[in-house]
Amino acid sequence: MSDVYAARRTRLREYCNAGGSAAALVSRPANVRYLAGAAPRGAVLLLGKTEDLLVCGGPTAGRPGQERPDETLRVQILPPAGGGDPVVAAGDLAAGQGADSLAVEEHHLTVARHRALGSVAPRLRLADLGSAVEQLRVVKDEEEISCLRIGAEIADQALGELLESILVGRTERHLALELERRLVDHGADGPAFPTSVATGPNAGRPGHRPTDRRVEEGDFLSVCLGATYRGYRCEIGRTFVIGTAPADWQIELYDLVFAAQRAGRESLVPGAACRDVDRAARQVLDSAGYTEGLTALTGHGVGLEIDEDPQLSPAAMGKLDACVPVTVEPGVHLPGRGGVRIDDTLVVRPEADGGPELLTITTKELLAL
Amino acid sequence: MSDVYAARRTRLREYCNAGGSAAALVSRPANVRYLAGAAPRGAVLLLGKTEDLLVCGGPTAGRPGQERPDETLRVQILPPAGGGDPVVAAGDLAAGQGADSLAVEEHHLTVARHRALGSVAPRLRLADLGSAVEQLRVVKDEEEISCLRIGAEIADQALGELLESILVGRTERHLALELERRLVDHGADGPAFPTSVATGPNAGRPGHRPTDRRVEEGDFLSVCLGATYRGYRCEIGRTFVIGTAPADWQIELYDLVFAAQRAGRESLVPGAACRDVDRAARQVLDSAGYTEGLTALTGHGVGLEIDEDPQLSPAAMGKLDACVPVTVEPGVHLPGRGGVRIDDTLVVRPEADGGPELLTITTKELLAL
Repeated sequence: MSDVYAARRTRLREYCNAGGSAAALVSRPANVRYLAGAAPRGAVLLLGKTEDLLVCGGPTAGRPGQERPDETLRVQILPPAGGGDPVVAAGDLAAGQGADSLAVEEHHLTVARHRALGSVAPRLRLADLGSAVEQLRVVKDEEEISCLRIGAEIADQALGELLESILVGRTERHLALELERRLVDHGADGPAFPTSVATGPNAGRPGHRPTDRRVEEGDFLSVCLGATYRGYRCEIGRTFVIGTAPADWQIELYDLVFAAQRAGRESLVPGAACRDVDRAARQVLDSAGYTEGLTALTGHGVGLEIDEDPQLSPAAMGKLDACVPVTVEPGVHLPGRGGVRIDDTLVVRPEADGGPELLTITTKELLAL
Repeated sequence: MSDVYAARRTRLREYCNAGGSAAALVSRPANVRYLAGAAPRGAVLLLGKTEDLLVCGGPTAGRPGQERPDETLRVQILPPAGGGDPVVAAGDLAAGQGADSLAVEEHHLTVARHRALGSVAPRLRLADLGSAVEQLRVVKDEEEISCLRIGAEIADQALGELLESILVGRTERHLALELERRLVDHGADGPAFPTSVATGPNAGRPGHRPTDRRVEEGDFLSVCLGATYRGYRCEIGRTFVIGTAPADWQIELYDLVFAAQRAGRESLVPGAACRDVDRAARQVLDSAGYTEGLTALTGHGVGLEIDEDPQLSPAAMGKLDACVPVTVEPGVHLPGRGGVRIDDTLVVRPEADGGPELLTITTKELLAL
């Protein structure tokens, strides 16, 4: 694995050198992890002129139960008390290595830390690394996809077990906690994001936080969860009906969202414009009259963070590449009545390889539980 | 409650005006919540020249299951797609109100957002608000302390129930999840921070993340958890022995840490220097020869965040005031053997009012479970 991290750092170094910076300071935790194999709390990565260093704020690196940094990378641990800010220490080290320019993540670094960095190394010209590391992260290697695939299996298992239990009378909060416990039981590092369980009028609401409302007969029940496995985060969302038979309006709404989600999934081909994938899903809902209250996105990339590039939205620029994992998650919420969301994680693959690879395989038939 | 938030904003406005800024932009979520009663994801608070505004990035404000913003405050919701950054929108609004200077939280705002703010309102002079809101938050009112007290009761209940169950053979991860479930069962919004359960050689390690190690006879078991109640976060930590009788070294180590923790608690009086409280606890461990591996802090403030000012450390400046809630949490960890941590949340009170108020009341006797 060390080769992987070193190769990623080489790509970033080439990018920086081409931009005129001899050194780069990576502070966003997911970016640090991507390049160093681990991101102890507060740690930053210096891509130095002569040597790369993982600079940590205290004796937290390499603790049991946490990921370990790439062994080829030198780890510098600052003294626990008064050791100062790793960002500032890294700036000092960069200047010490003779770098005259340092690219930093201006979209992550605070104004105060940026200023402190300027003070400790006044001869260092501070440039903007922009989202260079985020862009490197968009296309995944098979090792990364394998972590997502295992995470998706875990989420499918947790969801499947929940469906076998009695649901009526239990609260959204309890169901969400139960799902999170099952994720960990099956080997997840933890949930990929706060599990959402929404019943009745709450169902289908994007990002709903579980309440004390109990599941009732006749409810829509929508669930959105994901597992983190070796740092990689996936997402699955399903909507069910509680009781013996769904009402007509429930079947109609479900079929509509299902059609929208399928249209989105089927448009996932290498080279497709992100906005076209969004439009494929969105226009199914639009043409049925659901223009109000749609979310800004119908999907997004996943990886070391749950919400990464690309964004599948009307204003999105750019095209999809092969080996990019994305969610497809359209939904409709009717205020006061509830709604439907269906959400999968898929990997974009060329048609010759069988088309988009579905990672979250729980059925999307409308189940009456 | 609206009066409370308006009064807090008045105090901040007076501070800003004294510093020469007609307006302030608060972006750190806990600070937004403190001043507005709610902090929808991404929302910022503009303390304007003519009107205060809570600027939100999308239709997320006031959702069921979440806190509601102060009703006297106008809420501005940006359109979901392409509505832009609430920070930038707030800068535009501040300029529109005729402010010539805007104080921002440079320790929270990123360089990129700061620059975007400068571009949208080039005539607005950007100043630094510093940690003015954090400093307002240090001394709590009785309403805030009441939330912390309820949170502490919930944490005590969850811990008490765990102690009545069979522990041997269960993993750290399962015990941590069980505690978090019980916190929510008893009415917590959620855990105040990731619950730490540490057994055997892991016991007593600060910030230990639960592993798959199982509880064994003869282990030390240390647990650190907290509840969030109406946004307020408390903390309790205890260490137990598994089995019929603790070994001599376990009793000695426990008694030592207990003495250190008691010394810290007893030094919590209004007017005490923070570093003296730290020293009171630390010197008990120091004089027994445990100088290596002590944590940088022996305690810290709690409130809307789990780690607030004041810091109880050797280098801390400042004194304690009445009505400041802090943790006192010394510990010793012996590599390969385990260790002891004891952690309470207390409120500093004058001697005339009975001295420090202990919020976390679970026994600190050494229990053999």
